[in-house]
Amino acid sequence: MSEMDTIIMNTLDITQDKVDYILKRNHAQNKAIEDAVAHILDDVRLNGDAAVLKYTEKFDKVALETLVVSASEIEEGYKSVDGDFIETLTEARDNIENYHRHQISKTWIKDFSPGVRLGQLITPIDRVGLYVPGGKAGYPSTVLMDAVPAKVAGVKSIVLITPPGKDGKVNPYILAAAKIAGVDEIYKVGGAQGVAALAYGTESIKPVNKIVGPGNIYVATAKKQVFGKVDIDMIAGPSEICIIAGSDANPDFIAADLLSQAEHDEMASSMLITWDEKLAHETKKSVYAQMEELSRKDIMKKSIEDNGKIFLVDDIDSAIALSNLIAPEHLEIMVDDPESLLSKITNAGAVFLGSYTPEPIGDYFAGPNHTLPTSGTAKFSSPLGVYDFVKRSSVLHYSKKSLESVKDKVADFAEREGFTSHANAVRRRFND
Amino acid sequence: MSEMDTIIMNTLDITQDKVDYILKRNHAQNKAIEDAVAHILDDVRLNGDAAVLKYTEKFDKVALETLVVSASEIEEGYKSVDGDFIETLTEARDNIENYHRHQISKTWIKDFSPGVRLGQLITPIDRVGLYVPGGKAGYPSTVLMDAVPAKVAGVKSIVLITPPGKDGKVNPYILAAAKIAGVDEIYKVGGAQGVAALAYGTESIKPVNKIVGPGNIYVATAKKQVFGKVDIDMIAGPSEICIIAGSDANPDFIAADLLSQAEHDEMASSMLITWDEKLAHETKKSVYAQMEELSRKDIMKKSIEDNGKIFLVDDIDSAIALSNLIAPEHLEIMVDDPESLLSKITNAGAVFLGSYTPEPIGDYFAGPNHTLPTSGTAKFSSPLGVYDFVKRSSVLHYSKKSLESVKDKVADFAEREGFTSHANAVRRRFND
Repeated sequence: MSEMDTIIMNTLDITQDKVDYILKRNHAQNKAIEDAVAHILDDVRLNGDAAVLKYTEKFDKVALETLVVSASEIEEGYKSVDGDFIETLTEARDNIENYHRHQISKTWIKDFSPGVRLGQLITPIDRVGLYVPGGKAGYPSTVLMDAVPAKVAGVKSIVLITPPGKDGKVNPYILAAAKIAGVDEIYKVGGAQGVAALAYGTESIKPVNKIVGPGNIYVATAKKQVFGKVDIDMIAGPSEICIIAGSDANPDFIAADLLSQAEHDEMASSMLITWDEKLAHETKKSVYAQMEELSRKDIMKKSIEDNGKIFLVDDIDSAIALSNLIAPEHLEIMVDDPESLLSKITNAGAVFLGSYTPEPIGDYFAGPNHTLPTSGTAKFSSPLGVYDFVKRSSVLHYSKKSLESVKDKVADFAEREGFTSHANAVRRRFND
Repeated sequence: MSEMDTIIMNTLDITQDKVDYILKRNHAQNKAIEDAVAHILDDVRLNGDAAVLKYTEKFDKVALETLVVSASEIEEGYKSVDGDFIETLTEARDNIENYHRHQISKTWIKDFSPGVRLGQLITPIDRVGLYVPGGKAGYPSTVLMDAVPAKVAGVKSIVLITPPGKDGKVNPYILAAAKIAGVDEIYKVGGAQGVAALAYGTESIKPVNKIVGPGNIYVATAKKQVFGKVDIDMIAGPSEICIIAGSDANPDFIAADLLSQAEHDEMASSMLITWDEKLAHETKKSVYAQMEELSRKDIMKKSIEDNGKIFLVDDIDSAIALSNLIAPEHLEIMVDDPESLLSKITNAGAVFLGSYTPEPIGDYFAGPNHTLPTSGTAKFSSPLGVYDFVKRSSVLHYSKKSLESVKDKVADFAEREGFTSHANAVRRRFND
């Protein structure tokens, strides 16, 4: 195993191909996983709860009698969490709600010309499913980040699924966060079988219109396969952080933030871009030093040495150009007056400005969503938001007179595309 | 072959399962097509232009030397179109632009509390691909509807692909519309190979970040398979119209509008919902009478008899409930004061109000987009719009003091999820 890479990138070296090569970003499909998932989806579609319970026993090692988490189980979970953390969860929920309220769009209709009214309805999606990963820890932050924007959007039924532990129970932090966020239904099911149950419905789970939330490769593949039957959010890859830092930045802060991503998993990517060689050197030293004191050292070391990068560039403009090609999930900017650089940032999931905005403040508390585009998908997708839980409908009204004034153009256009019945629909109204 | 169905639906009969059964909506995958498409995608990814040219010769029956449509070809195509139609295209472009300007969202940043600034950047996607189907007619309306919102969003490179004719040329209407809409690059390529070229890039086509536009089952399957590498719009199914009409509605207008969808293809779905038996009867009579006079009779007859439906319901509320479960691509409402019903419409691609707003006015001219969610996907997706061509980035800034005031809560939250390095990133800033 080699040490964390330092890569010198001259301005002319900064190209998309080079970035993709260095970051080992590729999009090969895994046929074995795709086939395994397709089989599970079919089974659940045809056999409902029986298939779901079978896979739950197989993968989660627990034989459940029901998938439903009862009201009393939720209450019990909530009560088992200490008051301090309930307070923190509630404060986080309020912050998330306050921020996301700014994402609400409103229905509008207006006159565009005499007799012509056009507009756009905005309506909430009726029923959405949230996938919350299981595992020892339980991720109450994911529950808040996924459920609160849905609530703000006005979704009527928010359905949470999460794999049960071997004891058949759901982590109490998840239950507490679900109660605080206003989740309507909770089921003990995960994996591809959980995604299938949400998409197709079973005896105990009514189908949803959209599925969001992070999961492993089986969950991600299942989401992709049910896309079209339901909507999904972007498929999540490994976590990433990219830090642009100038000479005044504190290498210990940078190192701590790089390690906070590295602890997620060995595939996570922690990157520093700087034009200051001394800072690059000191950051690397601090990364190795801090690692020793932290509990997930093995994961972090492998992550940092496999996927951690320090890019030495010519200047701040090159740093921004490189970051825009990376399109990182999290971008921290530690330079003087970082807000003045925002207009140059074209691709990033979330931007953290200054030395006292470490990425974890966004994961848990500040308000903006922590479900962010990874693996360069910030080039075309957005943080999870209220806009993900609504849909739009166009509205059109023409008066008789206003239709008459354009009827020949519209009918002619239709005929040129070969659609004579379209032309007929316009002309017949005027006995043409 | 039987006549157009009339189905009596009592209010209690109106359920999602019943609707899906009657409309034969299912989401089975076609394994043979998926495998064929996956093979083409792999081939283009590995072999670039050579593979694209090979498939173009195989499927489009033309051996091209280059995929690029030159500036002089575009100019020549544009000049070959008569001035009247250029004027109509330009007016349509202006209407589409005027409407879509209302969909622009703006970057914002504001103080949420002392020392805490949060916001959202809105930036255009850098490079998008538009798929425009080929065929004898050429669809300039599709070019305008896909390109204009991208232009309004500020997309830098708008790339159009369309399959060439057997003469190796692109339909002049498409070239004229592309010039009027401000398309930046045009390539002669269609099918799964075209989607692959846009997603992965070849020697002559730089990869794009998002692919939109309608296509056949091969195009739709290819879009689904490249989703993740690039973003895509919703996958389009057969066209649909649903008309809610009361006693005063004109059966000839209704019939004409039903037929305008039916002429698209035999899979298209034309539906009337009414509580007036006489109107149902007269509409059906008019459908068969008008069909005789129109040029696509065979397609329309099969479409109407396979997939056309007249639903007889108890009252207007039942009509709306049924329509909301159908979630039609196009919804026409022909009753008194149709705008007053809008607040009850939960699922529809576009809503056409009153007797003089036939669906074709939306296809060609009014301004709202004609790329709309089909097959019930209006439950979770929206007309193509400016919002499809931008992405958002969260912005966060905390001052030292504001971070200090919440550091313990944030660090505690992180630790409860098992992320000690996240906690370290916060605490280390205060030497905790």
